[in-house]
Amino acid sequence: MNEGRRVIQHALSIVLISIALGLSAAQPAVSQRAQPGQGDPLPSWNDGEAKRGIIDFVTRVTREGGPDFTPVADRIATFDNDGTLWVEKPLPVEVYFTLARVRELAAKDPSLKERQPFKAALEGDAAYFHEAGAKAVLELILATHSGMTQEQFAAEARQFMEKARHPKLNRPFTEITYQPMIELLAYLRRNGFQTWLCSGGTIDFMRAFAPQIYSVPVEQIIGSELKLESRMEGDRLVIWRLPEIDAINDKMGKPVGIDRRIGKRPVFVAGNVLSGGDIAMMRYSKGRAGPSFQLLINHDDAAREFAYAEKDNASLKAAKKYGFTVANIKSDWKTVFGAGQAAAAK
Amino acid sequence: MNEGRRVIQHALSIVLISIALGLSAAQPAVSQRAQPGQGDPLPSWNDGEAKRGIIDFVTRVTREGGPDFTPVADRIATFDNDGTLWVEKPLPVEVYFTLARVRELAAKDPSLKERQPFKAALEGDAAYFHEAGAKAVLELILATHSGMTQEQFAAEARQFMEKARHPKLNRPFTEITYQPMIELLAYLRRNGFQTWLCSGGTIDFMRAFAPQIYSVPVEQIIGSELKLESRMEGDRLVIWRLPEIDAINDKMGKPVGIDRRIGKRPVFVAGNVLSGGDIAMMRYSKGRAGPSFQLLINHDDAAREFAYAEKDNASLKAAKKYGFTVANIKSDWKTVFGAGQAAAAK
Repeated sequence: MNEGRRVIQHALSIVLISIALGLSAAQPAVSQRAQPGQGDPLPSWNDGEAKRGIIDFVTRVTREGGPDFTPVADRIATFDNDGTLWVEKPLPVEVYFTLARVRELAAKDPSLKERQPFKAALEGDAAYFHEAGAKAVLELILATHSGMTQEQFAAEARQFMEKARHPKLNRPFTEITYQPMIELLAYLRRNGFQTWLCSGGTIDFMRAFAPQIYSVPVEQIIGSELKLESRMEGDRLVIWRLPEIDAINDKMGKPVGIDRRIGKRPVFVAGNVLSGGDIAMMRYSKGRAGPSFQLLINHDDAAREFAYAEKDNASLKAAKKYGFTVANIKSDWKTVFGAGQAAAAK
Repeated sequence: MNEGRRVIQHALSIVLISIALGLSAAQPAVSQRAQPGQGDPLPSWNDGEAKRGIIDFVTRVTREGGPDFTPVADRIATFDNDGTLWVEKPLPVEVYFTLARVRELAAKDPSLKERQPFKAALEGDAAYFHEAGAKAVLELILATHSGMTQEQFAAEARQFMEKARHPKLNRPFTEITYQPMIELLAYLRRNGFQTWLCSGGTIDFMRAFAPQIYSVPVEQIIGSELKLESRMEGDRLVIWRLPEIDAINDKMGKPVGIDRRIGKRPVFVAGNVLSGGDIAMMRYSKGRAGPSFQLLINHDDAAREFAYAEKDNASLKAAKKYGFTVANIKSDWKTVFGAGQAAAAK
């Protein structure tokens, strides 16, 4: 097993082990519709270093003839998803999807209720996952995400996103996006940037909601990948999802994912504090020949969202060492949640 | 070794074995600048079924309120490269690049001149490749394409494309594009289509010229891939090219490549007769729920380009069976080569 796979299996195991541990829940956030100010491109951001830094940077790279002018073709922005664009606590949304899929599978095949690791997932048996470890977690992910066509998986993911609600915030998963980040995506696009997702979550799960909630097209999503193959179903060629991991888009895997899809170092990168997962992507951006900007979201607001930190403080240390800009939710975000695009579309 | 890898190794071996076989050369094509007609979107195409079919299709899918109207977000077109957008005879351009790289490596390390498979490549020893087979060919490809950063490889490929000339057509490789296909790419883009490359050639080689000669951005290129990894070079994160094949973008691999990058079945696909390499991509397109169009280029014009066919006629048979549109170069293309964008930019 290679290093990348080991890393993700470890990460996934941590995530799933925590299913039944009952992480401390924050208060539901207050829904507040942002009032765009006069010409303020980021009305949900408080005036501060982060907001000023972003606006100054975008102004510089779009000023024709200026020393930092960056052609539109190079205005690539990559955004982590979980914890950067939407809530990842108590668990990332894809974990809830995985558990919902386990329940679906068990409804069709009741024998799963007695078979591990399904039994443990259905019963929230954390002790089992502590003991069985990464292999059991991977088995769950692969069993719930493979063995069907891309079109079938997309339908499964869409159905989940249409119905499921966040267990703590009392709103649909389509409305747990951060209003300040939605404004930032739109601001960058208005300034000629391509706004890509670059997440550890699987690409096909994100495709089911990113166009709707972020206005990011399906072809601008980078994520972890299952192995796929072309198959004939009768006379129709379909793409079949195999029970095997093909790419892990986390940590040192993120720059590889970006190179493969975009072929350019990003000018603007946003990630968050949780596991150091975005440091490599930020350093990759820093390494470009021209100007670049790295934004690190720090979750320090237990009242309005969730407060969490890294044990080793790796991301904040890297921010200091390499010059990433930190946005602290508590002080930098005037509003955390907006009405959401999904709500607005109703 | 999996089936996909075996297929490509076989294909590559055929290509490289033919290095010294001296395929019959066609006459250099006459350079002719196309005169755009009054409102004719495809002036280098003769009036015929292919041209009428393309224009009728584009008209239908862009007619708002019509039964075949296709939203801009779904207007995905994928184009094979070698033999579809530019000349692939006597050998694909990437093979000339590979051989040039072998000569470069041998200049730095003269011991390669006595080491196989480099010796055989340098001497055009077809008999060696006949005997040593696919493994030797893959060794050449990997040795010339890996062991450097993405930025170093891009520089190598750009340098080659700037200097090298087609051995038969007496013009730079940047000017062996088919004028009718350049017009088709532009016509589709004017009608809201994204025009993607989807080739068996390696993605990073295509990135070195596609933006310049096709106006296709680097992020809309799908090709075969080497394995990559993130590495630190001092304090700078770089993407390193490993001597291992990661994806083969040919035959049944093409729909997988398209799904991974685009996530949608293409509405418009173009490929060519050579090895049946584009049949799967065309059937994948045919399988979409809405309207679709498949264009198969048939090389039957030895006087103006190169004439070649498949032994089993698989592509032409598939065209008949599944309803792909065939464009015969001899009768459908008024002009084969234009002045080229590279020349026009001078």
